[in-house]
Order: sequence, then C-alpha cells, then structure tokens
Amino acid sequence: MTSQQKQNTGDRLAALRGELQARGLDGFIIPHDDEFQSEYLPPSAERLAWVTGFTGSAGIAAVLKDKAVAMTDGRYTLQIAREVESSLFATANMMETSAGEWIASNAVAGAKIGYDPRLHTESDFKQMQRVLKAKKIELVPVDSNPVDAVWAARPAPPATTVTLFPESIAGRSAADKRGIVAKGVNDNGAAAVVLAEAVSVAWLLNIRGKDIDFNPLALSYAIVHDNGEVDWFIDGARVPADVRQALGNQVVVRAPADLEKVLGALAARAKTDDKPVMIDSGRAPVWFSNILKKQGAEVLHAEDPCLIPRACKTAQEQQAMINAHVRDGVAMVRFLKWLDEEAPKGGLTEMDVADRLESFRRMDPACLDLSFDTIAGWAENGAVIHYKASADTNKTITPPGMLLLDSGAQYLEGTTDITRTLAVGELKGPQAVNMKRDFTLVLKGHIGVAKARFPEGATGGQIDGMARAALWGMNKDYDHGTGHGVGCYLGVHEEAATITPRGARSFKAGMVISNEPGFYKKDAYGIRIESLVLVKEDGVREGSSKKMLAFDTITMCPIDQRLIEPDLLDIADIEWLNAYHEKVYQTLSPHLSAAENQWLLQATAPLKKNQGLNPGALPVISPAPVIA
Amino acid sequence: MTSQQKQNTGDRLAALRGELQARGLDGFIIPHDDEFQSEYLPPSAERLAWVTGFTGSAGIAAVLKDKAVAMTDGRYTLQIAREVESSLFATANMMETSAGEWIASNAVAGAKIGYDPRLHTESDFKQMQRVLKAKKIELVPVDSNPVDAVWAARPAPPATTVTLFPESIAGRSAADKRGIVAKGVNDNGAAAVVLAEAVSVAWLLNIRGKDIDFNPLALSYAIVHDNGEVDWFIDGARVPADVRQALGNQVVVRAPADLEKVLGALAARAKTDDKPVMIDSGRAPVWFSNILKKQGAEVLHAEDPCLIPRACKTAQEQQAMINAHVRDGVAMVRFLKWLDEEAPKGGLTEMDVADRLESFRRMDPACLDLSFDTIAGWAENGAVIHYKASADTNKTITPPGMLLLDSGAQYLEGTTDITRTLAVGELKGPQAVNMKRDFTLVLKGHIGVAKARFPEGATGGQIDGMARAALWGMNKDYDHGTGHGVGCYLGVHEEAATITPRGARSFKAGMVISNEPGFYKKDAYGIRIESLVLVKEDGVREGSSKKMLAFDTITMCPIDQRLIEPDLLDIADIEWLNAYHEKVYQTLSPHLSAAENQWLLQATAPLKKNQGLNPGALPVISPAPVIA
Repeated sequence: MTSQQKQNTGDRLAALRGELQARGLDGFIIPHDDEFQSEYLPPSAERLAWVTGFTGSAGIAAVLKDKAVAMTDGRYTLQIAREVESSLFATANMMETSAGEWIASNAVAGAKIGYDPRLHTESDFKQMQRVLKAKKIELVPVDSNPVDAVWAARPAPPATTVTLFPESIAGRSAADKRGIVAKGVNDNGAAAVVLAEAVSVAWLLNIRGKDIDFNPLALSYAIVHDNGEVDWFIDGARVPADVRQALGNQVVVRAPADLEKVLGALAARAKTDDKPVMIDSGRAPVWFSNILKKQGAEVLHAEDPCLIPRACKTAQEQQAMINAHVRDGVAMVRFLKWLDEEAPKGGLTEMDVADRLESFRRMDPACLDLSFDTIAGWAENGAVIHYKASADTNKTITPPGMLLLDSGAQYLEGTTDITRTLAVGELKGPQAVNMKRDFTLVLKGHIGVAKARFPEGATGGQIDGMARAALWGMNKDYDHGTGHGVGCYLGVHEEAATITPRGARSFKAGMVISNEPGFYKKDAYGIRIESLVLVKEDGVREGSSKKMLAFDTITMCPIDQRLIEPDLLDIADIEWLNAYHEKVYQTLSPHLSAAENQWLLQATAPLKKNQGLNPGALPVISPAPVIA
Repeated sequence: MTSQQKQNTGDRLAALRGELQARGLDGFIIPHDDEFQSEYLPPSAERLAWVTGFTGSAGIAAVLKDKAVAMTDGRYTLQIAREVESSLFATANMMETSAGEWIASNAVAGAKIGYDPRLHTESDFKQMQRVLKAKKIELVPVDSNPVDAVWAARPAPPATTVTLFPESIAGRSAADKRGIVAKGVNDNGAAAVVLAEAVSVAWLLNIRGKDIDFNPLALSYAIVHDNGEVDWFIDGARVPADVRQALGNQVVVRAPADLEKVLGALAARAKTDDKPVMIDSGRAPVWFSNILKKQGAEVLHAEDPCLIPRACKTAQEQQAMINAHVRDGVAMVRFLKWLDEEAPKGGLTEMDVADRLESFRRMDPACLDLSFDTIAGWAENGAVIHYKASADTNKTITPPGMLLLDSGAQYLEGTTDITRTLAVGELKGPQAVNMKRDFTLVLKGHIGVAKARFPEGATGGQIDGMARAALWGMNKDYDHGTGHGVGCYLGVHEEAATITPRGARSFKAGMVISNEPGFYKKDAYGIRIESLVLVKEDGVREGSSKKMLAFDTITMCPIDQRLIEPDLLDIADIEWLNAYHEKVYQTLSPHLSAAENQWLLQATAPLKKNQGLNPGALPVISPAPVIA
C-alpha cells in the first residue's frame, strides 16, 4: 500500500477510536456484511474496506483501544496481507480464529465491545456472545453505527428504480410464490415470516433493481403473512406504476422508516393468535428478533422458505439459463480465439485481458452486467483465490505460463460463472510437467463431479469428495468449496445443495450449481476449472421410488487441452471430455463465424484415448497406505 | 406373530390406555432409548418391545386413545412389519415421518400427550414440541412412566459389580481424563458438565460393568466439575474397594436417588459463579435441563467433551484393538473353513451358523462376550438389514446362494465388528450373474473407502460418496450409513467421524471406524462387506502444515473371491485386494494349524489382474447423462 493509503487508514482508525471512546466503548466489531446480508455491497456499506483497506467479499474486523484485527477466509489470505497495513491491523483466518475468539484473548475482562445489531445474523451474534461471556466481556448494541459517524464522505445509500422480472422467464407468478411461502408459514403454525435477504424479496415479488454492482437487486425487506399478504419495505418513489399494478393490492409498499412500527403490530397480532414469527437466524440480523421479542412475540427460527423454491429453477428458468450460457459461450470462444492470437506475443496485462473479455461479452446487447469482478490471474497471481487485478498488482503476461480466468455475466435469462485456466505460449521443462499434472488432477475432479449420478437425498458433501480424490491421492487439496448455487438473473453465489465438505442439503432437480475444483501453488500458479451444472432426473433407483439424479453441464466453453497429461486420465474421463467438447462445438458453431469455428474445431478436437497399459494410474506417492 | 403374542400385545395396549386415561392423558410416547441413551437396553428398559413387540435397536411408538403407531428406520422396515401386529399398530419410517408429525396429524387439537422426560433428549423433545405446538397439542411430562405402571412382571434394573479397565490398555489414567474434560468445561467458562451417557462415564473413569448385553457398561451418570472433581451416581454397593482406591477421593460415589439434590446444589453454585452448566442436548435427557433451569442455572448446550477424546484411541488402545482383531480373525478363519465344509451339504440353519461362529470365538478365553446379536441372513433374509434369526424366521441353508454374516465380539483389548457375504454351493445362471455384479459393486465401494487418502479436516460425508459411486452408477444404493465409530472394549456403535451422507465431523488419527457398504435386493439376497479401519497419519499436505490421513484396515479376514466379477474391478482395486489378502495370510497364519492355513492360502490367493481392454468399465445404464 502507498504511504498515502497508510496515512488514510491511520487517520480513520484514530477517528473511529475517538468515536468509540466518546460512546464509552472499549472496542467495536466491523463485519463485511451489510443489513441485507448481500455478498456485494453498495459503496455506502463498504465499512470494512473503509476502515481496514481490505476489499475482499468476506471478512470481519475488530478494533480495540490499542489493537485491531482484520480477518477473512482461505480464499483471501494472500490478498488481505497485501491490502491491510500490518502496523495497524493484525490479520487472521476467520475459519481458524473467530472474531469473538480474537477479542476474548485481546480485550480485558469487563470490556464493553460495541456491535451493530443490523449487521450481524442472530447465529453469528450468539456464537460471539458465548465466547465473550466466558471471558466476562460485554457486547453492547449500538443504535447508530460509529463507523458511519466518522465516515465524512460516506456515499448515500442506493435508491434505483425497481423493474419487473418477466413471468415468462420466472415461470411462476409473484402471487403463486406468495402462496408457496405462505404455505411454509402455515406449516410452521406461524403468523408470518420476516425476509431479510434482498435476493429472497427479488425472487418472491419477481422484481429486480440496480442497487449494487453485479447483483440486480433492490435492497429491501419484506414480511410475508400467513394469509399471503406482503409488507414490502422500500421507498415508494422507487416503485413505478407497472410494478405496483403487477404486484396487486396484496403487496403493500411501506416506508423503511416504519419497519419497527410494523414489526410491533405484527408482534401484537402474533401474540393474540398465539403464533410465533418465523425468522432465519442464520440469514436475518439479530436486530429483528430483538424487536419482536421486546414486543412480546415468540420467534421461531426456521430456514428462509424462499431458499429451496428459489434454488430449484422452473422449467422456464432452466431453458433461459441454458440460453444464457450459449450467449456466454459465444463470447468466451471469441475471446479465447483473440487471446490465443495476442497473448503469446507478450505485453498484455491482466487488466487488458479482463477488459477485453468484458467487451466481447458486451457485444451481445443481452448482456446487462458482469456477475462479479473478473479474476484474471497470471502466474503466481493465479494462486490468489478470488484475486482482482488492481493498478498496483496488475501483471504483464510474459509467456510461457498459465492464466487463471474466472468471470461471469448477468443476462436477463440467467447468471453465468465460468473459470478456465489457459496455457499461454509453449510450456516447457520440469515446471510444465508439474503444471500439466496438477491441471489434469483438477480436471479429473471436475469430470468426477460432472458425471456423478446419485439418488434423491444425496448431499453436497458426498459429491465434494469425488472432486478432491485425485488431488488427495497426491497430497494436494484446495481451500474452498467445490460448488455453490447460481441464481437466474440473481446472485452468482446463491445457496442450494452446495458441494462442500459439510454440504448437508440434498440435491433437487432444477438446481444450478457450480463445479469448480482447483489447485493453487503459492508464488507459482493457480488452476481452477469451473462450469455450471443443472441437476436433472435420470432414471429411478432400483427397488425404490426414489429418482436418480445427474448433472448436465450447461457452461459451453472448451477446456484447454494443451494443459492435459493424458496418461493421468482414464478412459471414462476421456470419453466425458470428448463428448462435452463435441456438444460445445455443436451448440456454439451455428452462432460463430467461419474463422471462429475453425478455432473452436481445433480447441474441441477429440483427445486420443490413452494407449498405456494402465490407464488412470497415478504415480504412487507412498506404498498403498491401507496395507502399510 | 402367533395368536398368543397378538393377544398379549392387545392386553398390554389396553392396560396402557387405561393407565393413560386414569392420568388424564390422551396419548403417550414410547421411545426405544432408555435414560442412559444406550443402544442396547437392560430388560427393565425394553418398553418399546414390551408394548409393540418390535425388537429392533432404534424406534419409537405413540399410543393414542384409538390409534397407535410403531416406527423405525430403513434398517428395520421389513422386521417391524413382521414383528408388530398390524391390527393394533400402524408402522412408519421415522426418517420420513417423525413421531411428532404422526401425532400432529392423528391427535385432535387440545390433546394432552404424555412423555417421560428421562427418555427423550432435549433436541428430540424440542423438535417434537415445535411440530405439536403448531397443532395446539400439549406435551405433558410424567413423573413416573405409565408403561412401568402396567408392566406387571417388569424385570429389576441391572446392578452388576463395577470392574477397572486396565490403564495399560487405556493408555491414559482416569485422573488425566478428568483433566481433559475439566479443561473442556473451563474453556467454555462453565461450572461443570453433566455426562448422561454411560459410555462416557466408563471411558472417563476407566471402569466397566455388565449391566447390559454386548456393552460392558455400568449404567450411571456423572458430573465433572470445573476443578476436575466428579460426582458419580451409582449404587455404592456396586463399587468395590479396588475401584474406589484407583479413582481416589476426587471421584465421589453418590446415590442415584440424590441426583436431583446434587443438581440443585450445582445449579446454586453455577448461579453464584455466574457460570453455565454444560449439557449435550443431543445426548442428555431433557429432564436434566429442566431441573437445572428450575433451580435458576443457565444451561450451555455443548457436545459431550468425552466424545472426541474417546473416539481418538491412544497408541496403547490402537495396538490392543489390532491384537483383538488378530484373535477375531483366527476365529473367523476357523469358522469359515468349517462353513465351507459343512454348509454345501445343506441342512444347517441360520441359528446353527450363528451358534457355531460364537463357539469358535469362545474357544479364545480372551473373548468376553459378543458385541451384538450375530446377523446370519440366508438368501432373502440377508436383505433384512440388522436381521436377527428367531425361532419363527430361522431359515435352513439350501445351496446355492449367499449368506450375509455380520458379527463381532468383545475382547478386553477391544471391540470387533465384521461382515462377510459368503457363497454357499455353486452359483449358476442369471441370478448368479446379478449376485456377482452386485457383490463386486459393493466391493468397489468398500475398496474405495479403504484406500482413501485425505487431509486433516476431511469429513465423513466426503468419504461416504466414494463408497456409493459404483452402486449409484447402476441405479443402486443402500439405506444405511457406510461407517460408524467402534469403541475399545466399549460400544460397537460409537460416535466418531461417521461415514454418512451428512457426516460433518473431521477424521482424526486414532479413530476406529467401520467400512460397510452394502446392497439389498428385497425377497432375494443381501450383500454387505464390513471391516474396521484405523485412521493413521500418512504424510503432509503440499504447501500446508496439515497432515494427510489414511485408513488402515485392521479387520483380518478374507473377502469371498468366489463372488467377485473381475471384469468390474479396475487394476487399482485388484492391487488393493491382493495386498489386503496377503497381509491377512501373513498376520493370521502363525496362529493357525496346517489344515487351517491350507484353507486360508486358497481363500487369500491373488486375484488375476483383469486382461480386458477397458479395466473398470461398468456397463452403461444410460447415455452419459451429463452430455444428454
């Protein structure tokens, strides 16, 4: 960081500590999350970045009188070390040490630590409170956020105009969705459910907005009552006539300022009816429960009833997302052809690549936005998971080497998310051998997931191991999940049956999930291969009524065969790869020029079946451990 | 069931309903669990079996005025249908419908349903309460169990003499263990932890008992205080001088009758010190929390602090369990040789087989007990998961066919649990083709787990998928977990990083876990291949300090090669199998006679490597779904 940035951070930290002292607080906790639990934030909610300088999409900071810490997860370990001034902030992996644990061991007994109850989910808060209570440290809620108080030039919160999401794509009317959610409320014997995630509100009402980058959301809360009526908390000026008409009089637009008053009335009714109010304690700010309980309502903690219906795309959404991926594949192929021609000459920077990829996507007027900041990581920058090139990290591509490229776009028909790792120039020598071996191990994991078949009820955890088995066999792994849900013109990271070590949710037909194993060699290179898969029915389990499920890979883009070590693939792997590439060519070629098709033809040429005596055998690292 | 049994069940149900009416209850819930959450029960706690006739090791019943239900899980679906009188009880799979849900849809609003708070964990109770509250149905705790009130000839609760478990095997003194648990209590800032599981008390104090079949337990509770002192609730007459001396004066033996009084005193101290009392709400009866809260103590729900230390065997326990498995392997080989000679003649029954296997085990004076009722399932009885042959189900073995044999023993050195599926007679025709294919698919899953390597932090869920992938590919699966923890001369089913679809716990070196995929063809045959594996360190993860872990298969017994279809195994599978069989022969042969070794030599002969062009290829069921 520059000395100027360091100066700024120092000044801000001093100002915040002054504010805390004035409020009689010994410390304050600054999570990345905003009051809508959105992964991407409006500038007005970038409190963590403003105080610490860390710009990653997950993290938390704690500021004490004489110490401060900034934390994130494994994806951002290298980035946070680069972005945060080490003389001002310690850094830590929040998956190993929680903010609460750090405070417990750095603050004194009796300390009063402030927190903003609108920025912490109830589960996170309770966990933190338990750790701190054990050390007799008190958590004090603040009415107004002290960061905002000292943030002189804080931008105004967003207030974009709300638009309708076409029912022809949603495949389900807002009225039907309100019925589904109201049924969930009644099944729980509850009076209503409070929806605190803007993405749930967007899905429920078939509306979209432009409040934040990459996510077409209107940041707002909603209450769905047991009779299907909805209170929607959003500035009325943002809701045009066509939206109001489409939503009808069962959806009442209310001023955000009235939220506390309306919650009070709900609490009173719930009390009279002896019914609880549903809240998702893992996704709603603890502030809601506090208000409801203060008004004497019973709070029932239950998962957001929009989550699973939203994750399971309708037939119309499925077709739309497939179409969106054809558009995205066309842009990717045009870009990859260009990259093959230009990059080997050298001189391109990571930011050039990201800009050029965006311009290829923008050639299609249906592309409304990117779905996140493009990650273009050359060589060792590829090892920085979720890296974003900035003026001071921007590398020039100097062949030979590998470029990790993770990107996506927002089309009205759906959201895309794709990672390809690309060879630039002629890879030679022992380093090339390592790169190809590691790329092929990651590819084996990707294929293992892509061709998995499993019965209804199978979990993300069961599939996650298949993505890692080949890497594990060579003492390698990656510190991120294998797959996350993806929305239909909504969030690029949405919950579903996520493919993670502890993924406990069951796959259901219609879910769209990423398949993105990787490998990262610090200071050398990064590899990730990501496509999106659609969960489809595929037969019935023998002796049971359970359906069998399988994944359709809907991302249409070649995987760089120049990085494959065929001796490490078994025949079933190669058959999958060739069938996938054949489908990519058949799907995209009608939309491409002759020159583009010529490039695509060679990029999707069938990989020759391995002739070795022992297909699929991996170099043995240690004698078969089981028998050792 | 016989008409006499039917008569009995009818009378009992009528008597119970009379008792409920006298108490003003509209219904009552009868779980399988007793007050110590033990899987195996003393006769005095067999309430579910006494009322319903169902003898499985997991289940629950609900009795209303005019309806009743008996429920269990997938393992016992066929057994419960056979054991329960359908004119008196509906039956259901409690994994699909909970007892609470059944009551909610079968009892009227306002109904008062009784439950015994000593027999339900707090989590189970809360879940049930939530479902019922939604239907305005009230759960009423009973002071004394109404089943006991009408159970005329109810046996007396067990009261066997407590014995010491040798520290030379435990590898850790009771004092050290109390220190470990006390640290857990202090890390949580708690005043004490209540241990409600007899297995935790046995591990903590290095003691054993004979209160129930198969599990060397003394059914008792304990409280571990933050200073390491223990209140042990057990009849003093059961604790001989040597045990008292070994435990020292930090362990106070208290009368079970004083439990409520002592909890009250603990609650008072906890309140004064402003510290919570730790309880595992998933393993302790809700009764404990009720008492503590009534006395004004705060209850902190945290996992039993004995669970992980108990699951991670000490070096001494690991060696002892390996030794126990050599003893058990010797008995198994002698038995299998006998079976190969006798069974093909026909005439043997399932019970003959189980008895003979037990007698081979008992030839070794170190065998103190079986670890559960032997499951010997011939032909379609093999498809009854956790089947136990009884006088009226006992089948005669009529070759050719498959025999599923699941058994285990208790040695002072450790607990064993092994399943082998055996060919009897010459398998011929299309049925033989199916049997061999299914056996080989199960074997592929077993080998997939056995040779898995993974970093610290990997979960049971990630491994579970590897056990099922081959079966899934052929639209097959099994309705039970793949692996459970096994104790060291303790429970044969103990918690650890269990290999299940939602297994979220991480593997740790020293854990002993079963590896038991299966396949069950209703009314035809059952297949299961089970060995125990020991988690061992095996290198370090690249670019990380994390250790790599792997499984050592410690069960020493051949897998029946007459049931293998070699074309379905790939070369790595065959290499594992041959290496395992080689180790079995080397390990056991020194303890066997010449004739026994001759049999073992052919049973462990190397399987010839497959010469096919496409090793490991499975018949394709449907076009590669991913590309469809």
